[in-house]
Formats: sequence, structure tokens, C-alpha cells
Amino acid sequence: MKLSEIAKILDVKFDGKDVEIVALNSLKAASSLELSYCDGAKHANLLKESKAGVIIVTKDVQNLAPKDSQILVHENPHLAFAILSQKFAKKLIDEDLAFPSVDALATVMSHAYVGLGSVVAKNTIVMAGAFIGENVKVGENCIIYPNAVIYNDTIIGDRCIIHANAVIGSDGFGFAHTKTGEHVKIYHNGNVVLEDDVEIGACSTVDRGVFGSTIIKKGTKIDNLVQIGHNCELGENCLIVSQTGIAGSSTLGRNVVMGGQSGTTGHLKVGDFAQVAARGGVTKNIAGGKAYGGRPAVELKQWLKTQAKIERFFRDK
Amino acid sequence: MKLSEIAKILDVKFDGKDVEIVALNSLKAASSLELSYCDGAKHANLLKESKAGVIIVTKDVQNLAPKDSQILVHENPHLAFAILSQKFAKKLIDEDLAFPSVDALATVMSHAYVGLGSVVAKNTIVMAGAFIGENVKVGENCIIYPNAVIYNDTIIGDRCIIHANAVIGSDGFGFAHTKTGEHVKIYHNGNVVLEDDVEIGACSTVDRGVFGSTIIKKGTKIDNLVQIGHNCELGENCLIVSQTGIAGSSTLGRNVVMGGQSGTTGHLKVGDFAQVAARGGVTKNIAGGKAYGGRPAVELKQWLKTQAKIERFFRDK
Amino acid sequence: MKLSEIAKILDVKFDGKDVEIVALNSLKAASSLELSYCDGAKHANLLKESKAGVIIVTKDVQNLAPKDSQILVHENPHLAFAILSQKFAKKLIDEDLAFPSVDALATVMSHAYVGLGSVVAKNTIVMAGAFIGENVKVGENCIIYPNAVIYNDTIIGDRCIIHANAVIGSDGFGFAHTKTGEHVKIYHNGNVVLEDDVEIGACSTVDRGVFGSTIIKKGTKIDNLVQIGHNCELGENCLIVSQTGIAGSSTLGRNVVMGGQSGTTGHLKVGDFAQVAARGGVTKNIAGGKAYGGRPAVELKQWLKTQAKIERFFRDK
Repeated sequence: MKLSEIAKILDVKFDGKDVEIVALNSLKAASSLELSYCDGAKHANLLKESKAGVIIVTKDVQNLAPKDSQILVHENPHLAFAILSQKFAKKLIDEDLAFPSVDALATVMSHAYVGLGSVVAKNTIVMAGAFIGENVKVGENCIIYPNAVIYNDTIIGDRCIIHANAVIGSDGFGFAHTKTGEHVKIYHNGNVVLEDDVEIGACSTVDRGVFGSTIIKKGTKIDNLVQIGHNCELGENCLIVSQTGIAGSSTLGRNVVMGGQSGTTGHLKVGDFAQVAARGGVTKNIAGGKAYGGRPAVELKQWLKTQAKIERFFRDK
Repeated sequence: MKLSEIAKILDVKFDGKDVEIVALNSLKAASSLELSYCDGAKHANLLKESKAGVIIVTKDVQNLAPKDSQILVHENPHLAFAILSQKFAKKLIDEDLAFPSVDALATVMSHAYVGLGSVVAKNTIVMAGAFIGENVKVGENCIIYPNAVIYNDTIIGDRCIIHANAVIGSDGFGFAHTKTGEHVKIYHNGNVVLEDDVEIGACSTVDRGVFGSTIIKKGTKIDNLVQIGHNCELGENCLIVSQTGIAGSSTLGRNVVMGGQSGTTGHLKVGDFAQVAARGGVTKNIAGGKAYGGRPAVELKQWLKTQAKIERFFRDK
Repeated sequence: MKLSEIAKILDVKFDGKDVEIVALNSLKAASSLELSYCDGAKHANLLKESKAGVIIVTKDVQNLAPKDSQILVHENPHLAFAILSQKFAKKLIDEDLAFPSVDALATVMSHAYVGLGSVVAKNTIVMAGAFIGENVKVGENCIIYPNAVIYNDTIIGDRCIIHANAVIGSDGFGFAHTKTGEHVKIYHNGNVVLEDDVEIGACSTVDRGVFGSTIIKKGTKIDNLVQIGHNCELGENCLIVSQTGIAGSSTLGRNVVMGGQSGTTGHLKVGDFAQVAARGGVTKNIAGGKAYGGRPAVELKQWLKTQAKIERFFRDK
């Protein structure tokens, strides 16, 4: 899309070079053919180092933009970006893609669906009612249980098991907000990558990235009714017990254990081999190799001690 | 159904006028052709003002019933009502309804199902494996993702997005109880109404009303794995983050934000623009325009202050 | 499978009698034709009384094994057992089973699937997109709502209601762990049994037993988005409110009520008629006939009292 057209959609002044913009991306990852946005001073460092061809900025940071980037000034860059995300969204069904390629040694049961451009490798079984969207890759020796739904562009490694009614690649919960309180959807053009030997429980949901990928690394096992937010990254061999929620853009190291009904807020890091007790709520970065409990989660020993003290103190009060 | 027949089913004495009862309804909404029930003195005010043709009551409140209503005396009116709810339940499949009407500009993919009496408007796509029950209306420009299930009688506005494996219109969790501890199902003859621009996340569930509707108003966005109970009403532009549960008959104002894994108990009101932090548990009415946290939820500032005090007090104890 | 072959798979020394092993089972339930395992001294009592034909043990307890059992010594019997569980897993699709038997008075809608060896009794309706695996029994007068998934070997009584997108019989979340941190799946060869008059809510999940059955007894009602772990047993007429999780091998008595978003840890017992308040977290056995709240759950009166004391004490601090 021409930059002049973008300026028109956003109703902002533009008299620069009318380049062709091929995609939207983050400040960090955008190339000179892509457009990004900066929400204000708190992201100034990312702004200064961005390689984006065009950046939507607020007035107050316009002078911090790199010389090689053109800028569009908008009072709410996040909203401007949301509006554009719809224009750059991929088609839900793209009839130009190739017919799906299902290996002769794979099985696709009745009532299952495999979308255009998708590949199902050998010895994999796609059970009845399962849905595999477009441009999906499913590796060897996988089981996609009945009525599981794999959205477009998902990549699944070998020996993965997706249980019934799990959903992989649904849109993240991201919106920009208008002055009058409406929420404008941010279209998620990223995807989900499940590496080898990943297992996803029944009715669990893994959201796709805004840009880039939500990644579940090799050997990680996820129980039923778990929510993994957009752009999360889970390291190798994690165990995520039922009804846990990992909020968007959080990163778990390797061999992290999240107990049942636990959770994390977004944009934080959990170190390798950390263990969070059932119902624990992680609200900031936590170091690896330790056990945590409570909400906000603290070291488990400390939490248990405090709980015991509270109980003792108030028992006879 | 004749009132004499109803009396027979319930095994109660009846020697009044043998009217035809067309439906069950709440004390407040029932007309002279409908039957309602009153569980005892705590609902005396509703009883006195009811326009119901027939009311099942306990002995102690029988004299409070309006003059124009006939009464049936039963020791457990709620149970009597549950028993009748089955008799008045709509058929699961009603072959007398018209063929579904799918607009020429709508798309219904393979393995999808659209029930009798239902309407799918233009530019809407019903993806593979999605189920649309009977007598459902789906507006324009909607996406019903694969394997989502829309129960009978649901009404969906324009530009709504229902993600994969979400369930709209399932029965509420309502039962009456016998003396010996069995639970008798209350058949839910209401429905769900989603206004325009509503988005429902993957594997989320919205239960239908007992009578009347569970209503999600214009522009409200619901994340994955959220539960909305029967007869709830969510105002415009709410944001309900993943794994939150709103219990039956609760009302959220407009632009309410419920953080991840939060919840409310039933039959309460959350004011406009209230924000409940992640894991917050609302247990009584809360005023709008403020932030809340903890369980029972109190004002967020107060909750954070108390948590900090507790931690400080017990640190060295 | 010959015991010599098993020894080879596990790479352990074996020079005993080369018996044929027909199945894996628990120490308690295994017969002389079956193999079991003992993880160490804490299960010594079960080991001593086992009737298993072969038991995999750690070195330290090898002398405690019954005389009639052959032993295989392995440094990690749980891991050895996990490895074998795959070898003994039933085939996902067994083409030798008989054609499904659907009663002439049952209804199977379009896009529904009924697997080989399965039986659907009279007046039951299997709605569009529902999946019934192999060797499943569904009783009379049941409703299996759209896109619900019933895994192989499940047994469902009469008058049961399975709501849309519920999953019955998915694998439990059980793994053995290697020295280097990988998780080896324990194949679950048990099943799920739902007795008569059970209702399972939308998007709820009930995992199958490792061996034996996960059992939901007569008249128990489960709300939406609930997780029931492997090998749980729920007594008659329980009510399990939305988003609750019951961890593996826990037992609920009859008429237990679990409030919304509550939970239990695994391997515990909840007594008859116990009531756990919303968000309560049961972490040890609790007696019947009482109400509980908080996490760890204590008697509700005590919990409310303590909460009130805490609030009062810190209010002006």
C-alpha cells in the first residue's frame, strides 16, 4: 500500500516520499519496507534504533525518529496502527494458495478439513472434525484430535499431540481505544509455532502473535483449559497444569512448571526451572531454579511462612 | 397446557378456573397467560405486583398473591417450577421451522451446519464445522470460526467475531433440589443476544437466559476461556480478559474491564467504567469509575496498601 | 508382550521366567498376568501386597516384593513404566471392531461421527459435529450436543447431557521425567464412566484414568469450563460450578458443592455434603457436612472471621 494512501486512511498530513509499504511490524523488527508506530516517550529507545521505513509517532517524540525513517504524526499511534492492521490483514480464505499436501502415509478422517497451502506429513492423523486452516504445516507422527482447530499459518513439529477442541492460533486479545471508548481490533498477522514433542490439552487455547510468533518449544506439555497469550514464548520441557493463564508477551524459560490455576501477567520473564505453585500469580520477573507461591508470587518458603504467621497471629485475636 | 394438567403433574389441589397456560416466566415479566412461582417471603414484593395468570406459592405467602392471579400451593415452588420447565421446553429440533435463509453473499463452508428457521446475513462466513442451531439470526460481516457452536434462538448482530470452539447459548447451571438431594434441571427457554461488534474468544461460553436473554452489548470484547452465566447483561465496550467468570444474573455497566482470571458472584452490579484487576473477585455491587482488586474485591489502592502492610508487619515477626 | 522383550526395551537385566504380560496396572489392581511398578519405599505397603506378575522396582525395595512376583530392577521405575505404557497403548483406531450399533430410535445428525464398536441407545441424539470414539457406550435419552468429543472407551449412562465442545476421556496430564528434563508421556489406558443423569457443561474436560476409570456418579452436574483430572471419583449429586478444577485421583463424596473457580489438589478426599465456596482451594482431606473457604481451604466461618480480623487490624495501621 502506498504511503499516501495510508496517510489518507489515517487523515494525517503527508508530503514525503510516496513509498510502497509491504507490511506492519514492531519498531524492533521492521525493515525499510515496513511501517511501525511509537506510542510515546517510554519507547524512545526502540524508536531511535528502529529501521522501519515509516513510523507513526506522537508529536512529542517526532524528533527522536531515525533519519532514514519517514514519520507520520498522529495523536494516538496505537489506534492508527490498529486501523491499519485491518487493511494489512491476510485474507481469511486465500484461493490462490496451492492445494493442501497430505502425505500418502497420513490419515485425514471424515469431516476433517485441511486448508489450501497446508502440509500434513507422514504418519500424522487428523481426526474427524478437526480443522486445519490455510498455510499450516503439521509434522510427522502427530495426532490432531477431533474438533481441534488450527488457525492459518500455524507451524507444528513432529510427534505433537493436540487434544480435542484445543484452539491453536486464535487472535490475541489486543485492541486500541478511541476517545469515546470503542475498542478497535488489532489484527494479528503473526502465527503460532509448536516445536517437536509438544502436547496441548483439551480446550486449551494458544493465541497467535501480533507480528512474529507465539512459540512453544520442544517437549513442552500443556494441560487442559490453559490460555497462552499472544507472543508468549515457552521454553523447552515446560509443564503447564490445567486452567493456568500466561498473559501476552511473557517468556518462560526451560523446564518451568506452572501449577494448576496459576497465572502470569504480561511482558515478564520466568527463569529456567522455576516452579510456581497451584494458584500462584506471577506479577513480575522471577529468577529460575526456585519455587514460588501466592499472589503476587514470592518464594514459596516465604509465602508459606507468611501464611502460617498470619494464621497464628489472628487465631486468638 | 391446561392448568388442571399442570396441577396434576405437580400433584397439588386445584379447583379454580381451568385456564390455558402458554409459557413460564418470572414474577416480574409474566403475563396473564403465563405461570410463575414465588419461593417465599423474601420475594413478597415481586409477588404482590405480579401480573402472572397463575403463581405457585408456599403456604405462608399465599395471601400476598394479587387478586387477579390464581395460585397453586406447593411446599417447594422452585422445584415445582423446574419440573414444569421441562414440560414447557422447546423441542431441540423443530421440523416445522422454515428452511434456513443464507444470503447469497454469505459463505457457509463444508461440514458447517445451519439449522431450520435460521438466517445468515450478507458477507458473513460460517467456517467449517461451525454449528448454528435453529431460529438463530446472524448479522452481516460476521465471522463464525470453525467448530464454534451457536445454540437455538441466539441473535448475533453485525460485524461480530466468534472464535473457534466458543459456545453461545448453552444452558445455564440452574437446578432445583429434592428433599433427597437430587438436582432437577431448570430448562432454559431464554436465549443469548450479542449486539453489533462483539467478539467472543476461543473456548469461551455464554449461557442462555432462563427466561429472557443474556445480553452482550455493542462493542464488548471477550477473551478466551471466559464464562458468562445465564441472564447476565454486559454493557457496551466492556473488555473481559481470559479465564474470567461472570456468575448468573450479574450486570456490568459500559466500558467495564475485568482482568484475567477475575470473577463476580451472581446477581450483582458493576458500575460503568469500573476496572477489576487480574484475579479480583467481586462479591457485592461496586460503583463505577474506580479500580478494584483482591477477593472480596475492594478499591485497588486500598487492597494494595493492605497487602503491603501485611507483608511489612509479618516480615520480621 | 514377552517379559524378555520388555526387559530389552528397558535395557535391564532379566534371567527369570519369560512370561507373557498382557497389560500394565497399578500395584493394587494388577493380576499375575500384568506388570506394575513401585517408585520406592513410600509405596512399600502396596508393593508387599501386590499380586502383579512382574513389578519394576528400585534397588532399595527389591527385597520387599512378594515371592510370587518377578522383579525388574530399574533406577526410575516410573520412567520405565511410562516407556512401556506406549507399547501397551491401545490403537487409536482399531479396524477390527464391529460396526457401531445405533438404535433405530436414536438420532445421529449430519457431520457427527460414531466410531467402531460403539453403541448409541434409543432416544439419544448425537448432534452435528459431535464425535463418539471407538468402543463407547451411550445410554438412552441422552443429548450429545454439537462438537462434543467423547474419546474411546467412555461409558455414558441414561439421560446424560453433554454440552457443546465438552471433552470426555482425554488423556490425563501424566508424565515421567528423564534425568535431562524431558517428559515421557504416560499413556492412559483407562476410561471415563458417567453414570445416569449426569450433565457436563460446555467446554468442560474430563480426563480418562491411567488404569481404571474416572467416575462421575449418578445425578452429578458439572458447569462450563470445569476440569476433572484423571482417576477422580465424584459421588452422586455433586454440583461443580464453572471454572473449577479437580486435580487427579481426588475423590468427592456425594452432594458435594464446589463453588465457581474453586479447586482441589490431587489425591485427596472431600466428604459427603461438603461445600467449598467460590475460589476456595482444597489442599488436604476435608470432612463432610461443612462449608469451607479460602486457600488453603479452612472452615468457612473461620476463614470469614480471619479475613475480617485482618481487615480490621490493618485498616488504621
